[in-house]
Amino acid sequence: MSNPISKSKLKKLAKLSIKTGVNLQKGQNLIISAPIEALPLVREVTKQAYKAGAGLVTCFYNDDKMSLLRYKYANDESFDKAPSWLFEGMAKAFDENTARLAIIGENPQLLANEDADKVGRANKALSNAGAPVRERITAFNINWNIIAYPSADWAKLVFPKESKKQAIKKLANAIFASSYADTKDPIATWEQHNKNLAKRAKWLNEQNFSALHFKAKGTDLVVGLADGHEWAGGAAEAKNGTICNANIPSEEVFTTPHAQKVDGYVSSTKPLSHQGSLIDNIKVTFKNGKIIEASASKGEEILLKVLDIDEGARRLGEVALVPHSSPISQSGILFYNTLFDENASCHIALGQCYSKCFVDNENITKAQVKQQGGNSSAIHIDWMIGSSDMDIDGITKAGEKVPVFRKGEWA
Amino acid sequence: MSNPISKSKLKKLAKLSIKTGVNLQKGQNLIISAPIEALPLVREVTKQAYKAGAGLVTCFYNDDKMSLLRYKYANDESFDKAPSWLFEGMAKAFDENTARLAIIGENPQLLANEDADKVGRANKALSNAGAPVRERITAFNINWNIIAYPSADWAKLVFPKESKKQAIKKLANAIFASSYADTKDPIATWEQHNKNLAKRAKWLNEQNFSALHFKAKGTDLVVGLADGHEWAGGAAEAKNGTICNANIPSEEVFTTPHAQKVDGYVSSTKPLSHQGSLIDNIKVTFKNGKIIEASASKGEEILLKVLDIDEGARRLGEVALVPHSSPISQSGILFYNTLFDENASCHIALGQCYSKCFVDNENITKAQVKQQGGNSSAIHIDWMIGSSDMDIDGITKAGEKVPVFRKGEWA
Repeated sequence: MSNPISKSKLKKLAKLSIKTGVNLQKGQNLIISAPIEALPLVREVTKQAYKAGAGLVTCFYNDDKMSLLRYKYANDESFDKAPSWLFEGMAKAFDENTARLAIIGENPQLLANEDADKVGRANKALSNAGAPVRERITAFNINWNIIAYPSADWAKLVFPKESKKQAIKKLANAIFASSYADTKDPIATWEQHNKNLAKRAKWLNEQNFSALHFKAKGTDLVVGLADGHEWAGGAAEAKNGTICNANIPSEEVFTTPHAQKVDGYVSSTKPLSHQGSLIDNIKVTFKNGKIIEASASKGEEILLKVLDIDEGARRLGEVALVPHSSPISQSGILFYNTLFDENASCHIALGQCYSKCFVDNENITKAQVKQQGGNSSAIHIDWMIGSSDMDIDGITKAGEKVPVFRKGEWA
Repeated sequence: MSNPISKSKLKKLAKLSIKTGVNLQKGQNLIISAPIEALPLVREVTKQAYKAGAGLVTCFYNDDKMSLLRYKYANDESFDKAPSWLFEGMAKAFDENTARLAIIGENPQLLANEDADKVGRANKALSNAGAPVRERITAFNINWNIIAYPSADWAKLVFPKESKKQAIKKLANAIFASSYADTKDPIATWEQHNKNLAKRAKWLNEQNFSALHFKAKGTDLVVGLADGHEWAGGAAEAKNGTICNANIPSEEVFTTPHAQKVDGYVSSTKPLSHQGSLIDNIKVTFKNGKIIEASASKGEEILLKVLDIDEGARRLGEVALVPHSSPISQSGILFYNTLFDENASCHIALGQCYSKCFVDNENITKAQVKQQGGNSSAIHIDWMIGSSDMDIDGITKAGEKVPVFRKGEWA
């Protein structure tokens, strides 16, 4: 099958990723990870990276077929293993100022039919081994970016009625549109987009709410915000001084909740694809920040395993606001992928918080993050709770209510 | 283009690699490296590895196109960079008893038209960064194996007159034949083959020569052997106790020369493909173990850069005997790849010696290796000196001459 995605489109996305996403600096090395199908995009990105003055570009490929061979043939003991040495090595590379680009595109349902116990253990091993990398990414030690490539299995999941080629084309168009990579000048479009997101974040920071109250069908949740929390959105300055756009696409403004101050119940409004498994219709109840009850209509076993990974897995690490009118939401497409679906909906994340989302975040220590209410965990899993009937109130330090969202839109 | 190599053939080679080559042990992790075209073989190997009880299989892909993008677009400074962190990480994995499989198949002439200075610097940076891995491999800390996959550019170089598909088929057949992977029971064939090679090595060890004298057109070279050297060939026991066949194919018996005791001149009999460059008609003169004069009709600049990588690059680390009647030699095919061409011809290697090739090698220290005449270097580059008119005499401690080869065959 000839590639259904035109080279000129790939080039635009690659250039946007290197210039606006990673914002790769002259002489900086770059580590890419990508599904093996994304080879054409990896080559375009590599070209753009070297043209931008990259030192050395190194790419690691994931192969869904290889993952399935493990589930089909490996001994039971295999599922507790993970390549710690690789993550430790990458962490070292980041400490030497290497930038990071993750291209996603794996089949979101790859492991749907595999043994939940094995999937859970493999995920836990991978999460634990990945800690040195995850810590440096969530702390924005270096500039990084995630973009997407429409691989065949993912495209067929999103557009099941289309032919393989047509599905890839449609998913490609949806990715390019939501990433603003199909505009005349994607880099200029993102400059304006970043300004809009910064305005929202600035307003929220001025309000300095102590909590947010989410109300919708199936949801009545008060999310206390961390002491000294800061709202962020769009471009962000990494600790190495480089301003990057970590997520392409991105429509959210987000901050750090208080790990001890979340109470009430909340229901997911979109399915969550977590490391190859689909978890749908999540409903959880929080008390003093901790999930004390959890259920799901699909993937409940995986969800419960995730919640038991560590102490922080049952507490929130992020809360994010996205209006229902966001372009991704309006496309009506369910991507089965968090990078996209989280930008169609208000969402919360279980697990590790972003130390970035604190006032004076450049100097904040791990101990301070914890003391101010920031959560820590081996996981960081976003899931979608927004809808067209969601109301959100901000609760001020004085206990007053300020409308933030009405019927899914900024109030 | 549909894959011109049948799945059943790939399966036989994959099984031979895992069972006889790597001899992967239950629970052992495996690191594979491969050209991206070898994906079908990587998947077969992965399947066989998990069936054999592998812990975790991790694969790194090389992409020739990505390498060329670097030469086309990267800044000059890029060519002094190498991913040290990756090699250091791999070395750590080996220290945790991870096994290693290298699948080769890159275009042997990939960098033929690139700037020699950049190629030389990039090779040097890669050699230096790769030291922690190379040391563990050459010392046989763990079980390892190299096999080959017929990628298109390589196939077209070996069979320039054939169509791409036909060239791949022919190279595949040549690889399978010389690897004995096309026999009815490749694993049994290799058991017999290993016995034959062991017999040759045993005879040479009993002779305990102090030197070998090579004579042919363009060659008159006395290669002193290291004190306490040991001949090896075929299966070898790694330090972790696992018996592996490092090279598939392999027709050689080999040992460690004395780094200070090589004198005379020697000419190459086949072109040498070194990291994407072709070096042909090498002629060098040794004095007291060191190359004091070197020339080549093609790739001389690359050769001279290689010799200047470090002090040990001008001295020998290996000497190997292969009869001219070896199956690879008889095929008449010039593979432009050392794994194959070195098994068609007697050869010598510049650079790092194998500590394996010493009596009591399990306990030998780096200092002892050096004291007994073993060479050390960031490189290990084999090149072919054998031919149908080569005579070799063994020189005993008493100074007597014993015929070893006559007219390219065992005497």
